Amino acid sequence: MSAVFQQLSTANVTAGLRKVTDDMKTKNRTDRTGVVGTIEKESRSGSHAFSKIVENQIGKKDLIIDDCDAKQSVYVYGCKDSVLQIQGKVNDITIDKCTKMGVVFKDVVAAFEIVNCNGVEVQCQGSAPTISVDNTSGYQLYLSKDSLETSISTAKSSEINVLVPGAEPDGDWVEHSLPQQYIHTLKDGRFETTPASHSGG
Amino acid sequence: MSAVFQQLSTANVTAGLRKVTDDMKTKNRTDRTGVVGTIEKESRSGSHAFSKIVENQIGKKDLIIDDCDAKQSVYVYGCKDSVLQIQGKVNDITIDKCTKMGVVFKDVVAAFEIVNCNGVEVQCQGSAPTISVDNTSGYQLYLSKDSLETSISTAKSSEINVLVPGAEPDGDWVEHSLPQQYIHTLKDGRFETTPASHSGG
Repeated sequence: MSAVFQQLSTANVTAGLRKVTDDMKTKNRTDRTGVVGTIEKESRSGSHAFSKIVENQIGKKDLIIDDCDAKQSVYVYGCKDSVLQIQGKVNDITIDKCTKMGVVFKDVVAAFEIVNCNGVEVQCQGSAPTISVDNTSGYQLYLSKDSLETSISTAKSSEINVLVPGAEPDGDWVEHSLPQQYIHTLKDGRFETTPASHSGG
Repeated sequence: MSAVFQQLSTANVTAGLRKVTDDMKTKNRTDRTGVVGTIEKESRSGSHAFSKIVENQIGKKDLIIDDCDAKQSVYVYGCKDSVLQIQGKVNDITIDKCTKMGVVFKDVVAAFEIVNCNGVEVQCQGSAPTISVDNTSGYQLYLSKDSLETSISTAKSSEINVLVPGAEPDGDWVEHSLPQQYIHTLKDGRFETTPASHSGG
């Protein structure tokens, strides 16, 4: 049982994005994260009508986005030690520059993206055609039965584990660590690439 | 013709490692690179009898290591806008945290390693069984006829180009860009990994 799930099951506060935004304006003023940056980015989001932006949240375990639709994008930036739950179907989700972050989402129409992160734990409860990981180290990705067909792309990343449901109902998760090192050798004038084998593989 | 080669062919100053070390102690005192750090590292190198260390060189286009043997390691750290030529056979070479750096070497017995670099240009004139690249973006690697068998390993890296001599003598270099993105899909309970195809591939 992962920390993310425990946090979410014990979180009994349901807050929409408005609550998140209010928090950013008031309670977080004493945080070390720049308030100016937050407000500036908020005004920028005004021009991008269908985006939800969550920024600079630290130590918030009950962030919830519940009023979403399949045309919206969700952008999460600069959060730390926080847990975010996205309860509906959205077009795409981007998690950028977050550390020790938990994200639970249901469905994405296009892609779920993780960039510039460190120590992120993500659970997909529905379907996601594409999951991309860029410049990220430490990523636990829990897939659902409906997202086993997903295509996961990785670049400049390390320590990525994908957990898929076991064969039996209520069985244990099966963990797969994705390759993080690749060997290139020249054969007949072309480079052939193979993943470096893992001792734990 | 690459910048490295032009620099080296016009460099008529031959300096051994002693000259490099002298430079670090005198001329570079006004550089922004920490002198304390340099001296500290130098004393550490004293305990590692067979290492040559080149550190914190900025804008030096004529760095040359010419008195080396096959048991020695060469460690290059924190250099910028510089060109280093290693003229003999050494056990291994590590280039760490350098930017816009050119390195020309002849043979390594074990491995040539690039870590934490940005914009490095390397020419292997002899043989190198293993070349590894870690956490590096922007790397031009020129291989010789004797190093075509090398095994290149990459991790967390991007924009890596390998140039191999053409079929005809004095022919053009043939450039290969190594994959930097990989696609992982679940098949029969296991993840299969393939390099993302390159438009320029």
